[in-house]
Parts: sequence; structure tokens; C-alpha cells
Amino acid sequence: MTTTREKERTRSSHLPFGDQRDSPFYGRDIVSVRQFTDEDLRYIFDVAHEMREMVSRIGAFDLLKGKLLANLFYEPSTRTSASFTAAMERLGGSVIPINEVKYSSVSKGESLPDTVRSLEAYVDVIVLRHPEEGATALAAQYTKKPIINAGDGVGEHPTQALLDLFTILEELGEVDGLTVTLVGDLKYGRTVHSLARLLSRYEVTLNYVSPDILQMPDKIVTEIEESGTPQAVHTDLESVIGDSDVVYVTRVQKERFENPADYEKVAGAYVISPETMKLAKERMALMHPLPRVNEISIDVDDDPRAAYFRQMEYGMYVRMALLALVLGKA
Amino acid sequence: MTTTREKERTRSSHLPFGDQRDSPFYGRDIVSVRQFTDEDLRYIFDVAHEMREMVSRIGAFDLLKGKLLANLFYEPSTRTSASFTAAMERLGGSVIPINEVKYSSVSKGESLPDTVRSLEAYVDVIVLRHPEEGATALAAQYTKKPIINAGDGVGEHPTQALLDLFTILEELGEVDGLTVTLVGDLKYGRTVHSLARLLSRYEVTLNYVSPDILQMPDKIVTEIEESGTPQAVHTDLESVIGDSDVVYVTRVQKERFENPADYEKVAGAYVISPETMKLAKERMALMHPLPRVNEISIDVDDDPRAAYFRQMEYGMYVRMALLALVLGKA
Amino acid sequence: MTTTREKERTRSSHLPFGDQRDSPFYGRDIVSVRQFTDEDLRYIFDVAHEMREMVSRIGAFDLLKGKLLANLFYEPSTRTSASFTAAMERLGGSVIPINEVKYSSVSKGESLPDTVRSLEAYVDVIVLRHPEEGATALAAQYTKKPIINAGDGVGEHPTQALLDLFTILEELGEVDGLTVTLVGDLKYGRTVHSLARLLSRYEVTLNYVSPDILQMPDKIVTEIEESGTPQAVHTDLESVIGDSDVVYVTRVQKERFENPADYEKVAGAYVISPETMKLAKERMALMHPLPRVNEISIDVDDDPRAAYFRQMEYGMYVRMALLALVLGKA
Repeated sequence: MTTTREKERTRSSHLPFGDQRDSPFYGRDIVSVRQFTDEDLRYIFDVAHEMREMVSRIGAFDLLKGKLLANLFYEPSTRTSASFTAAMERLGGSVIPINEVKYSSVSKGESLPDTVRSLEAYVDVIVLRHPEEGATALAAQYTKKPIINAGDGVGEHPTQALLDLFTILEELGEVDGLTVTLVGDLKYGRTVHSLARLLSRYEVTLNYVSPDILQMPDKIVTEIEESGTPQAVHTDLESVIGDSDVVYVTRVQKERFENPADYEKVAGAYVISPETMKLAKERMALMHPLPRVNEISIDVDDDPRAAYFRQMEYGMYVRMALLALVLGKA
Repeated sequence: MTTTREKERTRSSHLPFGDQRDSPFYGRDIVSVRQFTDEDLRYIFDVAHEMREMVSRIGAFDLLKGKLLANLFYEPSTRTSASFTAAMERLGGSVIPINEVKYSSVSKGESLPDTVRSLEAYVDVIVLRHPEEGATALAAQYTKKPIINAGDGVGEHPTQALLDLFTILEELGEVDGLTVTLVGDLKYGRTVHSLARLLSRYEVTLNYVSPDILQMPDKIVTEIEESGTPQAVHTDLESVIGDSDVVYVTRVQKERFENPADYEKVAGAYVISPETMKLAKERMALMHPLPRVNEISIDVDDDPRAAYFRQMEYGMYVRMALLALVLGKA
Repeated sequence: MTTTREKERTRSSHLPFGDQRDSPFYGRDIVSVRQFTDEDLRYIFDVAHEMREMVSRIGAFDLLKGKLLANLFYEPSTRTSASFTAAMERLGGSVIPINEVKYSSVSKGESLPDTVRSLEAYVDVIVLRHPEEGATALAAQYTKKPIINAGDGVGEHPTQALLDLFTILEELGEVDGLTVTLVGDLKYGRTVHSLARLLSRYEVTLNYVSPDILQMPDKIVTEIEESGTPQAVHTDLESVIGDSDVVYVTRVQKERFENPADYEKVAGAYVISPETMKLAKERMALMHPLPRVNEISIDVDDDPRAAYFRQMEYGMYVRMALLALVLGKA
């Protein structure tokens, strides 16, 4: 990974005037949120904010005209795939969707490195979704083109974590000083793990609200403890919602419970209703990675604090920023 | 639906000079042919005709450059999907195909309103194909972006009805005064129902030619009667083809018959052959919504009156017109 | 096929200044390598080389802006589909992917000619992949738009053969005078058959290295004999690799063998390892149509003579050239 940027710089000798080839992101892979310095994060969010402004003013522009993105999805994810496609097309670039890898040559037994090495001849940047942890890091070793992790199994989904943080920033103006309450399935949710890790780099207080059997894993609690971030465990939301600047809800999946009766017992306990929202601060953000089933009542959708659909939109800006950055154009 | 346009107008404050924001179509949903006034229809067909001229002269142009369309298909329809894609791309816009909703987050249980509200952040217009009647009207309530019905079950398929009428207009120069004969399965065919309704707004004579068990439903006959349109029922085509300006053929599907022998009896009765065409007027249009199986012999394809492949082409112009209109650019 | 060009010329009266409407390729179908004169081949490879230069200098350009390609794939082929998509998009054109014909109207029983006649209204050029031999020639009879064969069953895959030859040209600077060794499954491999035929039009020496039961078919050996091209059959690679300028490896598929033990016996015999490459010339090209399984050890990938990933890239240039040529723009 670390050599990628060097390789790319060597190959590309034809970038027009105005390119940001000195940018620390040019040619880089986006594998994990851990790769970013605090400075990197500020820069990404600044560019994402600019993207938001540009889209609001002119809808789309030709920053990445002539650039090609391969959307290489080894498992389906309509939302993430559509978000990257929209991001690339709003920047004037084009997308080659490779969404059905069961049909692709991969099903004839080709390895991920071979697929990536073949694809790199066609495109300027690769977005990879893969069911196996570490797939992006592996693939990145085999291609000179920048590769962006769009989720690799129980591993990382860095663009989700970045868009979650960007949502907090855009909705509330800052991250430092906030109390963030994570609700629902904290044991298996890759999303909340990444978000908690990322938040621990700021001055926040974290609340965890979940059924007993779905608590935040010790490994992550320990990791975050080292950062000095205050963490508190709760089983009911009512006791903390009034102090929360952000409530981040995730789905409690029935299939996590051995005994269906156990599920029924807890399922209703974390449903956000208009009644719940009456307990919340006047200025706060209610977030959800979507899709939701019934963790948040649709009666809450028109509450101005309901940020989960805007969260999708912020995701597009973050992905626009990352694409522009790794292609040396932001 | 009615509030959509207002909402959209409020949000978009960045349209460049030259946009037709005063157009009665700007920001509107296309849900049903019933929503259009006669004036609306004339306007749509005028713009579609202009699109035809433009494509004939220059192939493609940048009217919708920077605009994004989500092709949200909950059931497959290659033809309709390709037609909208071609329409959008010929206008310089881009398309996000979401063709396999079984793979999408919908299969994780997400509701249509949530999907539409998530997607609207990415795109400027949504084309929706859905197996359930009323799906577009429902979805339209949840998005501020214009939504176009590309068929919702036994409900409506307004762009098909519009392209059928546009085909008659372009092929024969007018609709008033024509005799239009609908042939085949008139009972289950959504296409012929919509077309008959739309034609009843003009000065036409309608003939229905079908097997007994596949006759035009009473409900539609009654509705059309109220418009004063003459309607006549026939069981053989030979008796009316000589008076017909338009013969619109649909497929008689074997699975409609309980007894296969009944199917065999009628299946051949409405096959259009070169012999049949000898009985037809010299200037008329033979139409079919396609795909055909054997309702029209391939020996008829090169007959200049065979309009069914041109019908596909006209469909692209109608869709170009609608996209430009709802995006305020025509 | 032969009438296609005339038909197209008649229809298109709106091409801007600078178009190469006198080009012998304008409006032509690409069905088989046999259709090309030696002069044609030189011209294609010259244009492909120019495409390579252009991509290396500026990445993408607007030669085919406003042009639409239908990627009509009746069987999956991610690699070929992605290559044509990249080729079209690097030239500024757009692509309508029709990748899942099982879902398309074809599954409702529509014939290939009807599909092609319907599609031609939407696009400027059609790329067709089909499991049945002769499908492209058939389809070409029904459309006025140029159609490009992207593989039709055991029939032809002309763009693969052209990219193989272009790879040899770009890697080694010439074809005449070379010794080309084809390795692996020479019996069932459509790729090696087409390549051998194409090579026999140059001054080359051909070696065939394969298990006994997978030898080059007599029919092809006889055909090539008529061209005067020297051909030699070998069962081990070691004896000829030192004299080979090109070693073209294909996969020996287990399912070709009735007795698995027979497969195991030969499978290892043609694996290219770094040891094998020590026996090869210092300047030569190791090729493979990909995907590979283990016919070539991944330890060979970084050998500068390993040309198989570059082969993919050359494929994009050849397809860019063909698209530009048949659309009258090169």
C-alpha cells in the first residue's frame, strides 16, 4: 500500500495544470480509518463540505471528466454502489459496474489479485466491496491504481465511518464536546465499531445502549479506554437520551437470538418513536446507517432532528471528496 | 403528488438562465395518463417531435448534462429500462441502474418509501418500475424529486400509452378521424386499456377484435362510452382491417386459457401475415408493444406499414421529452 | 452484412466535418477475423496504437461523445464487457449494459433479430455476446447499425484474436519472423484457433504443445498448412521454449478428461514457473487469455516478459479502435 502512490506518480506523466499531485492523498488507497491522521480527516471533511456546496449550487461538474471508476462488488450493496456511482458521475466521471461477481470470471476461479490486475488497465480507480476481511489491503498490493474499501466483511467500511462523522459535523457544527449515544446491536455492528473508534479521536463522551447479549465487545471498549474517552453502558435509552447530542441507532437482528422469545423481549425496547424524541434535546441528530426496519418509527421521519436520510446525502459528498483526492484533483 | 412541484421549486435555487421553471411540467411526477390535460398531451408530443428532429440531426446533445437518473426497477424490463437509459444519455445525462432489487437492500426488508427517500439524495429524477399497482403514487409522496412511472403492475404504464399515441401521430400525422382496431388479448392487456382510454379523448372509432374470453372489460367499455367514442366488438380481423388506420396487435398468452385446446383454436386466428396485410389500407400503421412471439409474421417486418420497431424509437423520444420537461429543461 | 454499410450511409446524413465516412470500416459489422484484408489489419493496429498513445497522454477524449453502445450479453463475460465499456467511455461515449438476458424480454421468448431491431433505435453500435455460433452474423442481417462480435459460442471472438495479435506487435514490434508456441488445451480453445489462423497470414513458425487428447484439431492444422506456415507438434514445453518469441498458454480444464487421474498426470506438465522462464529467451512475450487458474505461477507475474495483464490493456485499445472505426470517427 505504501508504495502505491510512488508507483502511480511515476506512471502518470500527463496530468494537466492545476492538479494537486502534491496532495498527500494522490494515488493513495483508502483501506481503513486508522490510516488517517487528524489532519487527513480535517482535509477530507473540508473537501466533502466543498462538494456539498458545489452540488447545492451547480449540481454536477467536470472535475473527474475522462476518469473511470470500477465498482467491483463481490457482494450486493445497492446503497453503497449507488452512492459511489452518483459521486463519480456528479464529478463528470464514468463508472464500470461489476456487480455480479458470481457471474464474472471470478466464478471460473480467478483470484482477487488477478481480477484487480486485469481491471486496472481499464480504470483510474477501483472501489471494492468484498465479504472477506482484509480483501482491500490484499488487493491494494496488486494494483498501481488507487483502491477504495467499500466494506470488507467484518473488517472495515471506512467510507461509512467517515460519512457518519461528516454527518455529525455538518448537522451540529463540531464533534468535540458532544455526547454520542450508540443504540441497538453493538456487538456485531461493524458500523458502530468503526464510528466509536473514530469518535475516540475527538473529545466526546460515549454511551452504549443495547440488550445484554449485544453489548459493545470488550476489545473495542479497551481500545477506546486507552484514548481516555469516557464510556458508559446503559440498558435503557430514556435515561441518556436527554443528554445526547447524537443518537445513533442500529438494527437488532432477530437472527442474533437463539431464542425468538428473547428477541421479542428486547426488540421493542429501543424503538425510537415521537414519544422518545420528546425526551431528546432540541438540537441533536438522530442517525441510522439504513436500511431500517422498525427501529425508528416512520412518524419520526419529518422531525428536523431525524438526520438519517441526510446521512445518505452526506455519504455522497464524502465519496466525491475521496475520489477527487485519490485522483489528485481536489 | 401535487405538492411535489412546490417543494422542488423551493429547494432548487440554482438553475441557470434559460431553464423553463415556469413550465407546468417542472418538478412534476408522471404517474398516470389521466393527469394530463389535452394541452399537456399536445405539449409533450411537440417536445417529443423536437427530440426526434434533434436526434436525427445531431444524435445527442447536452440538455441534461450533469443530471442523474435512478432507474429503479423492482421487476425486470430490459426494453423499458434501456429506453429510459438511452433517452437520458442522448440528452447528456447519466443513469444509475438499480435493476436487481432482489439483491438490493430491499431484500433486507426496506420499504419503497425509504428506498426512494435514500435515493433522492443522489439523483435528480427517479424512474420506477414496480409490480404493485399504485407504487409510483405512493413513492411520489415521499420524494421531492420528480418520479416517473415505468409501469406499476396492473396499474399504469403511462410512458407506454404516450409512446403508442405518439407513434400514431408521427406515422399518420393526426389522431382525430382515425379508426383504431385493437387485436388480441384485450382483457388482461394493460397496454391496450391505457391506449383505449387515451384515444377516447380524441375523435376516433375503436374496434375490438379478440377471442370471446379475452374481450375488453366492461369497466373500460363503459368508461369510454361516456366519452361518446364509437366502439364495436368483432371476433374476426378480416371484417375490419380494411377500414382500420391503426391495427394494434397484442399477444394472446397460452397461460390465459384453462384448456390448451381452446388456446390452439384461437391462437392462429389473429396472426398477421402478408396475406392479412393485403386487406389493409395502403396508408395505415401496424403496431405492437413488443415483444411479439408469432402474432405478427416476420414476413411482415419489411412492410412499410409495419410500425412496431419504429414504435420503440418513438418511445425514446417521448421519454426524452418527459425527462427534459420534469427537469425544467424543455 | 455486406449491405449494412450502404444502409447506414444512407440513413446518417448528419455527421459533422472531420468524420471518416470514406473509411472502409464505417458502418461495418465486425463478425470474424476472416473478413479483414491484410491492409485492414494494419489499419486497425495503427489506430489501436494511436489509441494507446492518446490514453497514455490524456487518459480519455471525446471522439465518440454523444454515441451510445449497447452491450448485449446473452452470457456473462465480465472481462469482455468491462473492456468494451472502458473503451467506449474512454472515447467519451456511453454504454447501455444489457447483461442479464435471462431477465430480459428474451426470456419471454423474443428472438435475437427482434431484440436487435428494437435496440437499434436506441444506440449507435451493438456489441453482442451469444452462446450460439453464428449469432452475430444472423443479428447483423437485421440491423442497420454496426454490430461487433464479442464471442459467439464455439464460433468466433474476433476482438480477442485481434488483441492477441496486437499484443505481439506492441510487445515485440513485429510479427513476421517470430516463433509462436501455443500451449495447453489446443483442442477446445476458441482463442488459440482464431489466433493460429490469424498468425498464419504472417511469416511465423507455430509450435503446438499439449496433452495428446487436447491437440490442435486436424481441420485447423490443414487450413494453416495451406498458408505454408511451418507447424510442429510437441508434448513438452522445455524442448521449444528456448526458441519461442511468444508462448501463449491456455488452461487445461479438468472437465475435459473422462478420467480424473489422466488430468492429474498432465495438469502439472504445462505450468509456467520461474524455472520455466529461465529457459525462455530474454526478449519474448508470455501470454494468456485469462482468467488463469494455475497454468502460470503467480511468481512469474513480475517477470517483464509476463505480458498477460498488459494483454488486457491492449484489448481496450483494440476495442477503442474498432468502435471509432465502425462509427466513422478514426
